[in-house]
Amino acid sequence: MSKGLVIVISAPSGGGKGTILKKLFESDDNLTLSVSATTRAPRPGEENGVQYYFVTKEEFSEMLEKGEILEHAEFCDNYYGTPKAPVVELTEKGKDVVLEIEVKGGAQIKKLIPDCVSIFITPVSLEVLEKRLRNRGTETEDAILKRLATAKVELKEAHNYDYIVVNDKLEDAVEDVKSILRAEKLRYIRNKENLDSSLGI
Amino acid sequence: MSKGLVIVISAPSGGGKGTILKKLFESDDNLTLSVSATTRAPRPGEENGVQYYFVTKEEFSEMLEKGEILEHAEFCDNYYGTPKAPVVELTEKGKDVVLEIEVKGGAQIKKLIPDCVSIFITPVSLEVLEKRLRNRGTETEDAILKRLATAKVELKEAHNYDYIVVNDKLEDAVEDVKSILRAEKLRYIRNKENLDSSLGI
Repeated sequence: MSKGLVIVISAPSGGGKGTILKKLFESDDNLTLSVSATTRAPRPGEENGVQYYFVTKEEFSEMLEKGEILEHAEFCDNYYGTPKAPVVELTEKGKDVVLEIEVKGGAQIKKLIPDCVSIFITPVSLEVLEKRLRNRGTETEDAILKRLATAKVELKEAHNYDYIVVNDKLEDAVEDVKSILRAEKLRYIRNKENLDSSLGI
Repeated sequence: MSKGLVIVISAPSGGGKGTILKKLFESDDNLTLSVSATTRAPRPGEENGVQYYFVTKEEFSEMLEKGEILEHAEFCDNYYGTPKAPVVELTEKGKDVVLEIEVKGGAQIKKLIPDCVSIFITPVSLEVLEKRLRNRGTETEDAILKRLATAKVELKEAHNYDYIVVNDKLEDAVEDVKSILRAEKLRYIRNKENLDSSLGI
């Protein structure tokens, strides 16, 4: 059995990442979403190990020191990070693990796990992104402008990613990601041992 | 517009490459098969530029000297090679060009065009290949044994290829190749310029 893929997926907010991931998970039983660790308190209904691993700040710091966190970020005075152990365990079982993280985390993962597959999902253009954010109708003008400014900064990190999926039509973007995962599994370097033994080479 | 892909496809004989390519060409208008140059005489019904470019030995040698041949091999006292000009011209028009060549030629192309996509199609095992060759029922025992010996040598070159497609079920193998081509077109490095301008980065 081949090891599973570590898949990093990033997108500026409004990029449509959530919907694409939903479709992917519906159609691929072998995909697993990595569960982050956080120091924020659980909200009603949230369960440890489902939405997040809930840990104290001391526990998080200790995990960081021991190298047990693959990437992390601070947000509103709390830490959020990707614990290494479940990723290792799942990929060794052959599961493909999706890390849905922002661009700084993505760059950290690529350094630690060079054979991860990193995918950046972008809108067709900044104009389209702005239109999408406005069409949601849920945010203030200020919030929209902040999101756009962040998106501009995040788009500049696209060059750190292996693949760029332009989310123009949802079905096409989903097929794009599926093709990337299928193709990556066919790379010689990921199959060397299996092939060498089955083909007697 | 992005440049087309240069796609190298190799397989030991009996690997099922011909059938896979047929299906691919039926479903993808953007694919073009590279036409080789040869010094052998045209057979009845063969047209220059269709099955082959028919050239004299002097013309072939001159093309080689001028670096106008990407890879070549000798077979039954005749030269066969891939002329560079049509490959360059077609990929610049956005066409994906398939070079259906044997493993030595494949290695030559990878050196000259490092961003080519190289795919090696293999049988599940040597036993399966042997069975397939025997089931054809068209060849002598000697010919079969020779083909198997060649296949063993060719399989050892699989590690020079980017992707390995195991031809177990035809439909799966065709989908594998399609996914590889779709994914390769999404690589950041192949789209840098288009993306940078459309996203304003």
